[in-house]
Amino acid sequence: MRNIKLIIEYDGKKFGGWQKQPQKLNIQGEIEKAIEEITGEKVDLIASGRTDAGVHSLGQTANFKTESKIDIEKMAFAINSKLKQSIRIIKAEEVDATFHSRYSCKGKKYRYIINNSKYGSAIYRNLEYHMPIKLDVENMKKAIKYFEGEHDFKGFKASGTSSKSSVRTIYSAKIELKEERIIIELEGNGFLYNMVRIIAGTIVDVGLGKIKPDEIPEIISSKDRTKAGKTLPPQGLYLVNVYY
Amino acid sequence: MRNIKLIIEYDGKKFGGWQKQPQKLNIQGEIEKAIEEITGEKVDLIASGRTDAGVHSLGQTANFKTESKIDIEKMAFAINSKLKQSIRIIKAEEVDATFHSRYSCKGKKYRYIINNSKYGSAIYRNLEYHMPIKLDVENMKKAIKYFEGEHDFKGFKASGTSSKSSVRTIYSAKIELKEERIIIELEGNGFLYNMVRIIAGTIVDVGLGKIKPDEIPEIISSKDRTKAGKTLPPQGLYLVNVYY
Repeated sequence: MRNIKLIIEYDGKKFGGWQKQPQKLNIQGEIEKAIEEITGEKVDLIASGRTDAGVHSLGQTANFKTESKIDIEKMAFAINSKLKQSIRIIKAEEVDATFHSRYSCKGKKYRYIINNSKYGSAIYRNLEYHMPIKLDVENMKKAIKYFEGEHDFKGFKASGTSSKSSVRTIYSAKIELKEERIIIELEGNGFLYNMVRIIAGTIVDVGLGKIKPDEIPEIISSKDRTKAGKTLPPQGLYLVNVYY
Repeated sequence: MRNIKLIIEYDGKKFGGWQKQPQKLNIQGEIEKAIEEITGEKVDLIASGRTDAGVHSLGQTANFKTESKIDIEKMAFAINSKLKQSIRIIKAEEVDATFHSRYSCKGKKYRYIINNSKYGSAIYRNLEYHMPIKLDVENMKKAIKYFEGEHDFKGFKASGTSSKSSVRTIYSAKIELKEERIIIELEGNGFLYNMVRIIAGTIVDVGLGKIKPDEIPEIISSKDRTKAGKTLPPQGLYLVNVYY
């Protein structure tokens, strides 16, 4: 049995998310169908984690087991030939039998793009979040630093979701300003459901002056979802990289 | 009568081009409709020139005359409120009665984006042209320089189009490489129908080794459309700026 690791770019707009689900177009289902078309096998495609409806990926990672003899050099090309243009396998490689996209994952990098121009962008409207009110980027840069390190992010996950522990470590949290776009980047050992979008929403509240940068540690330690900012919409969010 | 100048961004994908035409969604018609909704007047919106079906704009310029008293500070916001998200007025200003978007135009800047990665991009698929064969960018950079200056571009326009003269001056022609993207930028006093897309196609032929950089002057002076490269598709083309 070969174990194939894929790196996958997708435009989240028209999908109900990564996970296979009836009635809704989903990325996992589309790729499994494409793999079946080229190998004749029904495979189980395991991702590093789910992404929600509308969220984009530049580097989602997934793996599947196969008996197929297709040359690894031709694998990405063959799968892509059966896929919609809104999903692209950007790399395929053969890995050790023990490799598991979720369990082997050491960390992830996410990006959230905010367009802070007055009227937003016609061209990139589905690839960013538009905030027409001018944000205080210097304060946002101060605030984001408080998220670095190990914290219990209980207040920064969607309510009603259960996971054993809500303690996560953020290795790097930074903000870059590119003309009228504010780009938030977070690298960490793992992220809770909606965590990046809630952190981004909290940082926007700092930019709006609703929260002071030095109030962040208190908001984190309160573990109270209502103290953090709102969940920003999915079209600004990108899964950039998965680390192994 | 006030004369209002608009700068307009649009995503060309779903439009049959700038120009008003029955049966096809077009940018001019959409904006004229929006202006009518806010002013109650049927206006004639004059652009710097047409853009084709699928071509994008970051800085198309157009003007219209109106008796409306709407504050110029609120004009862009008001028109945008009646427009699809794929069209955004990014600036509105009041100009002299003599200003005419087409006749007053002194020059334009166009950009053509080529994605030269193996599998193309899922996210930016409608915003660039994908060329999977590795191009020789150094030769493309040499070739593009031959387009600078005043030339008769008769061989670089769509056949069947008539314009009095096909002599145009290109002030600046350059190529930039950004990771796997090759970005062609042309600034000139005017461009013939399909001229940028044919120049881009010719430059791609240089990148493929079909044309040598020093053959470009001969191809230009032949004035023969069949000697130039093919017309590249519209989704890679952006009208960046219009100069007055």
